[in-house]
Amino acid sequence: MRQIRKNPVTGSWVIISSERGRRPRDFVREEPTGKRRPTGSCPFCEGNEKATPAEVLAYRDGNSPPNASGWQVRVVPNKFPALCLQEDLERKEIGMFRELTGVGAHEVIIESPHHRKTLVDFDLSHLTKILRAFRQRSLDLKKDQRLRYILLFKNYGSEAAASLEHPHSQLVATPVTPWYLKEELEGSRSYYGLKRSCIFCDIITQEMEGKVRVIEVKENFIVLAPFASRFPFEMWILPRRHCPDFDRTGDKELMGLADTLRSSLRRLSSALDNPPYNLIFHTAPSRTSRKDYWDTIEKDYHWHIEIIPRVIEEGGFEWGTGFHINPTLPEDAATHLRQA
Amino acid sequence: MRQIRKNPVTGSWVIISSERGRRPRDFVREEPTGKRRPTGSCPFCEGNEKATPAEVLAYRDGNSPPNASGWQVRVVPNKFPALCLQEDLERKEIGMFRELTGVGAHEVIIESPHHRKTLVDFDLSHLTKILRAFRQRSLDLKKDQRLRYILLFKNYGSEAAASLEHPHSQLVATPVTPWYLKEELEGSRSYYGLKRSCIFCDIITQEMEGKVRVIEVKENFIVLAPFASRFPFEMWILPRRHCPDFDRTGDKELMGLADTLRSSLRRLSSALDNPPYNLIFHTAPSRTSRKDYWDTIEKDYHWHIEIIPRVIEEGGFEWGTGFHINPTLPEDAATHLRQA
Repeated sequence: MRQIRKNPVTGSWVIISSERGRRPRDFVREEPTGKRRPTGSCPFCEGNEKATPAEVLAYRDGNSPPNASGWQVRVVPNKFPALCLQEDLERKEIGMFRELTGVGAHEVIIESPHHRKTLVDFDLSHLTKILRAFRQRSLDLKKDQRLRYILLFKNYGSEAAASLEHPHSQLVATPVTPWYLKEELEGSRSYYGLKRSCIFCDIITQEMEGKVRVIEVKENFIVLAPFASRFPFEMWILPRRHCPDFDRTGDKELMGLADTLRSSLRRLSSALDNPPYNLIFHTAPSRTSRKDYWDTIEKDYHWHIEIIPRVIEEGGFEWGTGFHINPTLPEDAATHLRQA
Repeated sequence: MRQIRKNPVTGSWVIISSERGRRPRDFVREEPTGKRRPTGSCPFCEGNEKATPAEVLAYRDGNSPPNASGWQVRVVPNKFPALCLQEDLERKEIGMFRELTGVGAHEVIIESPHHRKTLVDFDLSHLTKILRAFRQRSLDLKKDQRLRYILLFKNYGSEAAASLEHPHSQLVATPVTPWYLKEELEGSRSYYGLKRSCIFCDIITQEMEGKVRVIEVKENFIVLAPFASRFPFEMWILPRRHCPDFDRTGDKELMGLADTLRSSLRRLSSALDNPPYNLIFHTAPSRTSRKDYWDTIEKDYHWHIEIIPRVIEEGGFEWGTGFHINPTLPEDAATHLRQA
């Protein structure tokens, strides 16, 4: 059973996905077991292709057949998807509540056939291939007029909610724009209305002048510790060229992104001794409808990546208020990460 | 060094509190140690009153002197406060960024002199006393015109970010309204503009009719599994009488709240085997300024408590988007909690 429900007070959406029919006992906390699973039984390992749903994309050697070994990057639907494309998008009102059917996609990007590798181990051409898979899946899913947002993210380490150790990222495509993104879009729009410039472009300009929060500047990308970092050692990777959509990144820029991403993750790994983290692409929603609303997005929104090390436990304060307490000055984090 | 910084894109605030000057190595993950601290050395235990800053409130036996044993509930400033009252509220602009000095309060409500007790163990009169301390500190801090919001919350269990095992709650008073609360306030206001009624009162009415998400109905309070629950087994406790401010709860209602709270936490503990949780009071901000903005709050906002069991790990999807995936149907959660 999959639904998307709207909080009538805040307007934010929640995916209710109870396919697995878990009972209360299933939530009793146990030690994370992901790491202890023997490699041989990992469904993402080469040779175990039959353990996943059929692939939707794979970059393969020569002419190896689908769903067999011989691939470098492989994308498959999540076996326990939070959302599902094989449903009609229906809206339902239950008194004052609103609900959508759980239409969407939930895919896994298997980043390598090798179980023990991590993003920082790959060479640039392999990392570029992973990013190319992200781009290709995003462009493909955007053709589905029901989908409004394509979210690409990576959970690394069990404390960051990765349930399997094998290197992988995820994609969730939703028929609504997620709350945090909506806030970003509205903030960017309102700034553009006042200043006639992109707020992210202006942040890049100001940070390049001030330098204190700059971690690295590459040809096409800049890495920052954001001024109002919510988490210790939070990092943003922004393209220096204004562009609202990640999936319009060209091949050459994609290689530059691979290079920037790898060096950022290496800095993080070295500064914090291989910490768990979440990596999230922030990109513009599909411009499929409400043209009046989306027509300025071309100028006012700027795609970027946010990397959140999961090194402090978030408590009631953060969840209850959206108000984070960060024990590390972003300028100090930038210094440590620059030197790492 | 304490500051409150504004995210220029989303408008949300972050507390940067680097008093303890932690270095990257301090964030390398270790096993939580809170539980293993020997009871004798706990700063919240009776007899160790000198280990905390001087108390700001205590309910004591007869005429026992302050900061000595003989208390039932004791409130002290946090030894490592995220915010601090002994500063002037100053606003600073750094180019396009905005920053406030870290003015505020951060207090600990020590719920009992006994190290091993938890909220569900207390008798009603003791639990009422704890709630009375919440109310008294809130009313007192609201006199400070610099403070806009008084946040009361409890982290229970190390997975819910409780750093000490001894039963305690926390209070953080801030000079800005936290983001999530602002969203709630705006949602409530816009609903009131359309319907001329309080959205929470209407939710109570609709849920009492439908019954499927009702966990318990008491004389003055109702316990619900919210329609768009973000977390498995999330619970809301709402006063049935409309009131925007928790701290206006009368003595008799406070005892009813103690009763409802205890029975809700007992249900949770029984259904999920004593899970970690966060408990957050959602209440209206101080109406100290911007009268035009706050004058309808009397009618449109409704204080309540949200209880969030921490039984699933939140990943990049949740942090990156504010878009939660909940594997438990709220109606199923309500059934389990009703029967617990």
